[in-house]
Amino acid sequence: MAARSTIAVLGGSGHQGRGLARRFAQAGMSVVVGSRDPIRARAIVAEWPAGASIEVDANAAAVARADIVVLAVPFPSIAPLLEEVRSYFLAGALVVDVTVPVTFSGGKMAMLDVPEHSAAEHVRARVPELIGVAGAFKTLPAYVLDDVEQPLDCDEFVCGDSEIARARALSLVRLITGLRAIDVGPLARARSIEHLTALAIAINRRHKIHSARFRVVGLASPD
Amino acid sequence: MAARSTIAVLGGSGHQGRGLARRFAQAGMSVVVGSRDPIRARAIVAEWPAGASIEVDANAAAVARADIVVLAVPFPSIAPLLEEVRSYFLAGALVVDVTVPVTFSGGKMAMLDVPEHSAAEHVRARVPELIGVAGAFKTLPAYVLDDVEQPLDCDEFVCGDSEIARARALSLVRLITGLRAIDVGPLARARSIEHLTALAIAINRRHKIHSARFRVVGLASPD
Repeated sequence: MAARSTIAVLGGSGHQGRGLARRFAQAGMSVVVGSRDPIRARAIVAEWPAGASIEVDANAAAVARADIVVLAVPFPSIAPLLEEVRSYFLAGALVVDVTVPVTFSGGKMAMLDVPEHSAAEHVRARVPELIGVAGAFKTLPAYVLDDVEQPLDCDEFVCGDSEIARARALSLVRLITGLRAIDVGPLARARSIEHLTALAIAINRRHKIHSARFRVVGLASPD
Repeated sequence: MAARSTIAVLGGSGHQGRGLARRFAQAGMSVVVGSRDPIRARAIVAEWPAGASIEVDANAAAVARADIVVLAVPFPSIAPLLEEVRSYFLAGALVVDVTVPVTFSGGKMAMLDVPEHSAAEHVRARVPELIGVAGAFKTLPAYVLDDVEQPLDCDEFVCGDSEIARARALSLVRLITGLRAIDVGPLARARSIEHLTALAIAINRRHKIHSARFRVVGLASPD
């Protein structure tokens, strides 16, 4: 029997990562939270109700044992983080980028101009060639993700640099209760997905909520 | 008593415009289809079940009598069209841009690089200063719009260059049965709305449907 898949969530004790890490653990995956400060991250994870089942390690060590590596760090940290961990990937690992290139300088939300057009393509340019890259979990509000007892009840958009990368990311999305996975095609579609997140943030701010997310109407089958 | 609002739908006999024109007429508005070829457009409109209540005029003449001017032409036609009609706007008119800068060259869908960042801002740059501009009806599939007996059953995203422009466009969206109007703020948000349309087109193509549209989850109130 194959061992359980190990998923590393880099930035897994942070704002966006902590909900994902706990939901992956709920789904029965072996989860390693990667952190640049594992001692501090261990203290955070120990406070989670399901924290005992989640390991914590330095980012590079987490990558070195993961079948799937989820990038859940702020966009500006991607380049230095991938520089640090790029030689640690297992052959056949998949990188799932969940980041969105937004800033909140001066209280205003704006999208950053990314030379590669999207965060996912920015990641692709910094990961070893043979490692697949997918974009997913980009449009889920941290506030809702974090409330792990609440089903997400929405759709999540998946793109990837190959059929295999996309299929693996679609399967990962389907592990999370209440999420419907929607295949939107090549990695370059990440740009549109990231704009969807910007729209969700704008809706949240304007309507004073924290939970705006999306459902596709008119799509009968799951994907 | 104030006369009924007159709405001109430029490109109203075309792919995206025809569903909108008929739905505005259903909602009780006085509708003028604007066309560069009014004779041909009159023949098209005469075939619509509710066509008798819809007038047809040349684009400039339609603008000259409209409280609201809806731009439903292909993106590349915007600049020459606005050049032609810009001196015909009534004082206090509102322009509602429904266009999306996509191309389908070689069978592949791609977003055009718009110097002003979005179609709505491209329009803003070409309309007289005192005329308000809003973006709306950008994410509705023509296929669903066109089937005017079918309620749309989705959300529509509205942005605008002033509170007044936005409020007027939100009211216009609410006239259409089955649409919830969602205020997403300033006109610059059009860029994200237009990416949402690109995502809907990608979903349609990948899943071999024509009806992908969106619903925001987590937003209790209508707006």
